[in-house]
Amino acid sequence: MTHTAPSTALLTDRYELTMLDAALRDGRGEHPSVFEVFARRLPAGRRYGVVAGTGRLLDALVDFRFDDDVLGWLDDAGVVSEPTLAWLAGYRFGGSISGYGEGEVYLPGSPVLTVHGTFAEAVVVETLVLSVLNHDSAVASAAARMVTAAGGRTLFEFGGRRAHEQAAVAAARAAYLAGFTGTSNLEAGRRHGLPTLGTSAHAFTLLHDDEAAAFAAQVAALGPGTTLLVDTYDTEQGLRTALRVAGTDLGAVRIDSGDLAAEARRARALLDEAGATRTRIVLSGDLDEHSLAALADAPADAYGVGTSVVTGSGAPTAGLVYKLVARAERPGGICRPVAKAGGDKATRGGRKAAWRRRRDGRAVAEVIRPFTAPPPSGDVRPLQRPLVVDGERVEPDDLGAAQERLRAALAELGSDATALPDGPVAIPTEFDDDPEARLDPKACS
Amino acid sequence: MTHTAPSTALLTDRYELTMLDAALRDGRGEHPSVFEVFARRLPAGRRYGVVAGTGRLLDALVDFRFDDDVLGWLDDAGVVSEPTLAWLAGYRFGGSISGYGEGEVYLPGSPVLTVHGTFAEAVVVETLVLSVLNHDSAVASAAARMVTAAGGRTLFEFGGRRAHEQAAVAAARAAYLAGFTGTSNLEAGRRHGLPTLGTSAHAFTLLHDDEAAAFAAQVAALGPGTTLLVDTYDTEQGLRTALRVAGTDLGAVRIDSGDLAAEARRARALLDEAGATRTRIVLSGDLDEHSLAALADAPADAYGVGTSVVTGSGAPTAGLVYKLVARAERPGGICRPVAKAGGDKATRGGRKAAWRRRRDGRAVAEVIRPFTAPPPSGDVRPLQRPLVVDGERVEPDDLGAAQERLRAALAELGSDATALPDGPVAIPTEFDDDPEARLDPKACS
Repeated sequence: MTHTAPSTALLTDRYELTMLDAALRDGRGEHPSVFEVFARRLPAGRRYGVVAGTGRLLDALVDFRFDDDVLGWLDDAGVVSEPTLAWLAGYRFGGSISGYGEGEVYLPGSPVLTVHGTFAEAVVVETLVLSVLNHDSAVASAAARMVTAAGGRTLFEFGGRRAHEQAAVAAARAAYLAGFTGTSNLEAGRRHGLPTLGTSAHAFTLLHDDEAAAFAAQVAALGPGTTLLVDTYDTEQGLRTALRVAGTDLGAVRIDSGDLAAEARRARALLDEAGATRTRIVLSGDLDEHSLAALADAPADAYGVGTSVVTGSGAPTAGLVYKLVARAERPGGICRPVAKAGGDKATRGGRKAAWRRRRDGRAVAEVIRPFTAPPPSGDVRPLQRPLVVDGERVEPDDLGAAQERLRAALAELGSDATALPDGPVAIPTEFDDDPEARLDPKACS
Repeated sequence: MTHTAPSTALLTDRYELTMLDAALRDGRGEHPSVFEVFARRLPAGRRYGVVAGTGRLLDALVDFRFDDDVLGWLDDAGVVSEPTLAWLAGYRFGGSISGYGEGEVYLPGSPVLTVHGTFAEAVVVETLVLSVLNHDSAVASAAARMVTAAGGRTLFEFGGRRAHEQAAVAAARAAYLAGFTGTSNLEAGRRHGLPTLGTSAHAFTLLHDDEAAAFAAQVAALGPGTTLLVDTYDTEQGLRTALRVAGTDLGAVRIDSGDLAAEARRARALLDEAGATRTRIVLSGDLDEHSLAALADAPADAYGVGTSVVTGSGAPTAGLVYKLVARAERPGGICRPVAKAGGDKATRGGRKAAWRRRRDGRAVAEVIRPFTAPPPSGDVRPLQRPLVVDGERVEPDDLGAAQERLRAALAELGSDATALPDGPVAIPTEFDDDPEARLDPKACS
């Protein structure tokens, strides 16, 4: 396959390149460095976050190249000096990346991604790393709560129209990873292999002289197993018309407005009375995790969720940051921790390793230690895995593996921690600082 | 220039294509139709919205073509029938689009975009239209409030890392349209011609043995007119070091943490005392319209705004919808209004025209009437303009024109309506329904 993907190199803040320029000039650009991605806190009320976007990010890094078009623009715009342009022309990320598996649960301070390489090669990817992980993790974190709230019922992602047209594709992927069954977004079907679905909108009914004509046209095109949208005029009448046109083999009805719980109950009674006991009921219309939870007793089979899932349901970005935590004082030197001081933006220096501690099979703490410290004692599982080694990508996960990882991580957190009411973070993050372990000849290599 | 942009055709909900399939099959696909884009309401507390994305949308429509790759995927996925695939192969939007100029203010119900053509050609672009306008208008609407709150001080958009990597580019454009001076996002510079800026992050300071070495390296690369980030360790010490290294010709200092008002006052005093009276102070760090307003008395020269602007400051989508409002019963027939009934999702049928009514130069109402009704009396200005006529794009605005349009529209609303405290919508929307005017032979033609 010919590689024709456009470069992702300019999806970058200008200061990454001005820092690069200055660092190459004074020689520090080649110093081994470690950057970590973590969230200082979770959005208010959230008990856990879900890592998502890792697979997309690693794909985008392959296309992080400075081709002639990009270099020409940077030159014209005067962003960096000539020697830096020459360095960028040969750029290919040659460092290593490890991180939490996609779909893993994270807590405040979890080192969800660790990038090590030279300062120069690692600093320039900051913006891309954060854009991808912040967006996708925000959507997956919201979607996971919706999956819990839906209590086993099927969820479809219908929100692409409420998001930037490319963010929509990534949002569909993140929702699927978190347990949604499919998406309305066709590009997400093509790009990521997601199941796509959808039948008709109110416009299709309004195009016809009456609902019966619209339903007949849809059934003629898509068969009686289709989903008919029955709330354009009067939902009860729409249901009767749907049954009259499609018969009791009608696949599903969708109700998109009104008191959805009451409408679903009326619809179920009417369908059952007519013998359409297998006709499913799909509800949509401004649903979020809270309204899904409130529909628990309604006879719904599936939900379409739009705006709330693609916008992270009140938390549209995950707040992940990318911070230099260690660097050597010369190429090949020993790695020393570095940290910003003071206030709520202070950082913890040193490359870190992370484990989830369990007791009786339940997660009880996120344990974060210096990278070179020995593993904590007791029942712990390591959270980081190699993703890129010396510029070579490790065999990627598929989305199914990420779904499974999330299911297992949530089961381990337990239903008290994953249930819907907002609350404190599910488990504490324990920073175990072992000063002896922090000067690390390996961390930067 | 060779046209190599990828197709935008699959950035679309599946139901647009299944509706198309059914409508082509029963002949209604060729019926003249009118769709309108409007917001049912504004986000809570918002007094006006800002239309943005129109230019991006019209560019993306050019690339809304079903090429062999797209058709092959649709065929494999079984989305539509063979005759519909053949129809899509020849697809090119050949209808007409009119709408509010980019940068115009909108209110609840404002018909910000009107798409007329056959049902088939107009229905398939729904998702793309909404994705672009919902995202960009959400960002511009938030950004405009920030510009007001900044009271004439310079605003930079630094939020790309908190948004999907492509949404970041569009967000930079929308913020610029609303009055931001520039962006950190390089792709926004290349794609949209925006001014880009940025110098260094805390990582650059931490890479060096001390702040003085980092500042010296930056000044060597970028000159003394650069902006030095002074809050990595101790802001007062950082300021003294910056002056010692760069001298009193230092362009600016940036402070990214702490009590920004207090830090700015201390910095101004220290800079002035040292004779660096022209050195500017840039503040950043979790700023939004409310914290900007609170900084009014602080001696800041410019602000960097990140998360809040790219996520629409609490309203990440504009809530615009795309509704069929009129269609003919046969090709060439008279256009009849159609509307969904009932509840909070009811629509108003009929193609509409919109004016802003003014009194003493101030906007007093949004007046919306049937398209064929005569203009309202008094001092009104029309809000809709042709954007695409029979498939041909009208000469597009540049972003400067959109900026100017927004400035004029906000001045017309007046400072009471655009001032920061949340409140009711700035002016009422008056629907003037003239039943005589609603059957319109021209509206669908």
